[in-house]
Amino acid sequence: MITRFEGISRLLTMRPERGRSDDLLGIVDDAALCVSEEGRVLSAGPRAAPADEGHRVVDLRGAVVMPGLVESHTHLVWGGDRLDDFVARTSGVSYADIARRGGGISTTVRATRAASGDDLRSGGRARLDSFLRAGVTTVEIKSGYGLETETELKMLRVIRALDEEHPIDVIPTFLGAHTIPRVFGVTRERYLAELLEEMLPAVAECGLAEFCDVFCEETAFSLAESRQILEAAAGLGLKLKIHAEQLSYTGAARLAAELGAVSADHLEELPASDIRALAEAGTVASLLPGATLFLGQERFPPARALIDGGVTVALSTDCNPGSSPTTHLWLMGTLGCVRMGMSPSESLAAMTVGGARALGRAAQVGALAPGMQADFVVLDSGRPEQALYWMCALPVARVYKRGRLVSGTADEGEAK
Amino acid sequence: MITRFEGISRLLTMRPERGRSDDLLGIVDDAALCVSEEGRVLSAGPRAAPADEGHRVVDLRGAVVMPGLVESHTHLVWGGDRLDDFVARTSGVSYADIARRGGGISTTVRATRAASGDDLRSGGRARLDSFLRAGVTTVEIKSGYGLETETELKMLRVIRALDEEHPIDVIPTFLGAHTIPRVFGVTRERYLAELLEEMLPAVAECGLAEFCDVFCEETAFSLAESRQILEAAAGLGLKLKIHAEQLSYTGAARLAAELGAVSADHLEELPASDIRALAEAGTVASLLPGATLFLGQERFPPARALIDGGVTVALSTDCNPGSSPTTHLWLMGTLGCVRMGMSPSESLAAMTVGGARALGRAAQVGALAPGMQADFVVLDSGRPEQALYWMCALPVARVYKRGRLVSGTADEGEAK
Repeated sequence: MITRFEGISRLLTMRPERGRSDDLLGIVDDAALCVSEEGRVLSAGPRAAPADEGHRVVDLRGAVVMPGLVESHTHLVWGGDRLDDFVARTSGVSYADIARRGGGISTTVRATRAASGDDLRSGGRARLDSFLRAGVTTVEIKSGYGLETETELKMLRVIRALDEEHPIDVIPTFLGAHTIPRVFGVTRERYLAELLEEMLPAVAECGLAEFCDVFCEETAFSLAESRQILEAAAGLGLKLKIHAEQLSYTGAARLAAELGAVSADHLEELPASDIRALAEAGTVASLLPGATLFLGQERFPPARALIDGGVTVALSTDCNPGSSPTTHLWLMGTLGCVRMGMSPSESLAAMTVGGARALGRAAQVGALAPGMQADFVVLDSGRPEQALYWMCALPVARVYKRGRLVSGTADEGEAK
Repeated sequence: MITRFEGISRLLTMRPERGRSDDLLGIVDDAALCVSEEGRVLSAGPRAAPADEGHRVVDLRGAVVMPGLVESHTHLVWGGDRLDDFVARTSGVSYADIARRGGGISTTVRATRAASGDDLRSGGRARLDSFLRAGVTTVEIKSGYGLETETELKMLRVIRALDEEHPIDVIPTFLGAHTIPRVFGVTRERYLAELLEEMLPAVAECGLAEFCDVFCEETAFSLAESRQILEAAAGLGLKLKIHAEQLSYTGAARLAAELGAVSADHLEELPASDIRALAEAGTVASLLPGATLFLGQERFPPARALIDGGVTVALSTDCNPGSSPTTHLWLMGTLGCVRMGMSPSESLAAMTVGGARALGRAAQVGALAPGMQADFVVLDSGRPEQALYWMCALPVARVYKRGRLVSGTADEGEAK
């Protein structure tokens, strides 16, 4: 049966009319949204004729509706916690020093290796629940806390299981190249060989990852190594992402552009001269201001320059236990506005269409147009900007995935 | 009847044992908390003997318990909103320029003058509800959006009504000296005369304020004017607070110390050389990192230097529509840790005992010790640091005010 959602005072389609650069949000006032039995959008626009006989009608009672948010960069599956690192950091020890002492990511690797698939799954499920309550309906999750074939595959299996069990669509990324497990006695050469000869073929073989990501950084993989890993991954049919220019400039964003990566992520240290390469390649900039805030860095990612340079920007939580422990994508939107020179509309776009582009999913999610998934959020505030303005607000009353209510409670209007 | 709360796996009394500088939190494991019929703490410490016959026993089932949070600086009552200013600011207009164009605080003053007491009360109530859900049990609220006698008194009456109707204890502050209402055609001289000759005596007469606060800033009141206003207020029996060194250095913190103000608030631009004066006077530094974050300022308040210099620090949201629209006191604690060099324990102390000291209420609230109000929070995470570490978390399962459940739902343990 077709469901027609009515009583939408304002619909943000995120599909602006052609040529209207003043309306990134594709706003339609007094709108209706028709959804097929299979959960696809049939129409999203002005409420014109009354509903056809036989349509199920849901009255949203004057609500503001926008697409489900798309979260394009997380490390959401992990074992253990990093509270002790946090406490150490506040006593003046730097993130890099904690890592050198065998804390930091090694703590999480040890705990993730030791954890059962069920335990990892239950932690991941809780964090996905929290994303869903915030109106997020698509989430990318990376492996990368195994740093050995067996545990990387265990993580990817957990990520697949979460996709199957949870209303949120999960996009899996292989990040075996997260760091070199030297503290576990593995040399750079040996780990690179394991990545190229064992992990990547195994990951491609079992089809558990859509993307391959590399952390290109002084403390992790060099530019040359990143190229080698990503070229191998591309050869095996994986799409590409890069952790680029987070703590120092390495040239990784240019590499992302050259290899046609779908996204280059972080970019705090990106020089203006590298923006054009990203724009020309159509590589999306996934910006993660939660990590900037949490790590106490001065420089937030250069969103304004990227947007002005024609690069599509996505905002993401970077949800992870070490540098950005949060699922609050709305706070990232606020930081976009108050720290990165983005307008509220640009932030909202970066949390929806931007995220979808960073995952190669722009035809399916992040906007509401015929043929797309009917993933949408009913806001509980009158203006969507309010949700960015009010810090740490969670302005989400209800969440629909493929046209079905998956978070929040139906009110009377639903009963018709 | 006496109520005995048991099953507390960890109690944060915020009353460290004497001489134990490593335990700011006054931690007691496996604790019990006895509360009188009137809602006072009778005992807070190790669970020793079984409960007396006739005591009502509430089993908290292994929870972590800490004092209700104390919010020492808000402008929580206002009319209208400031969304348009927010949107303008993200397009590059500065906070100061918005004010010069007649937006900013003038927008709120206009709307607050026009609003009915009932409307102001209902907006304030919603924000207090949000504070209560976050575990905040005492909130200071300032007037200051009237800037004329009638509306300032209207605001103070609303603040009193909120105190009477709401479970949260509200502490009222008169902030007629918020800014000079030049855009409303009132000269500096005339407004100062109105403040001194009309407003202050009226406020003192009706007993609607406990504190008098002044915004000492280039764009508002000079140091000499601030002194004049605060001395008059002290003469009328009001306790003192000052908005000091927020946007520029004026010497207001030294003035606060000299006049024995209970707190000096903001302090982003405080020089190290003025810290000693605050420490010697026992004036509390109320730090408001939400405003720093939201206004895009580089410099967060110098919490580390203040604590090292012997000043008591309070953390506060500054909840207001222009520069810190939030009730999320936990985020302020996180900012304390990640941007201001505070340890998690120091942040938790600043959100409880620190806030209480900033309101002259250290004997009543902010800690759990015999004779104090039984205002406490049941956390839903195992370690209290978790609540600061996880950005935008709201780790509060239940809130008790004077021993009675005021937020969250009782579980079975309550039924005994």
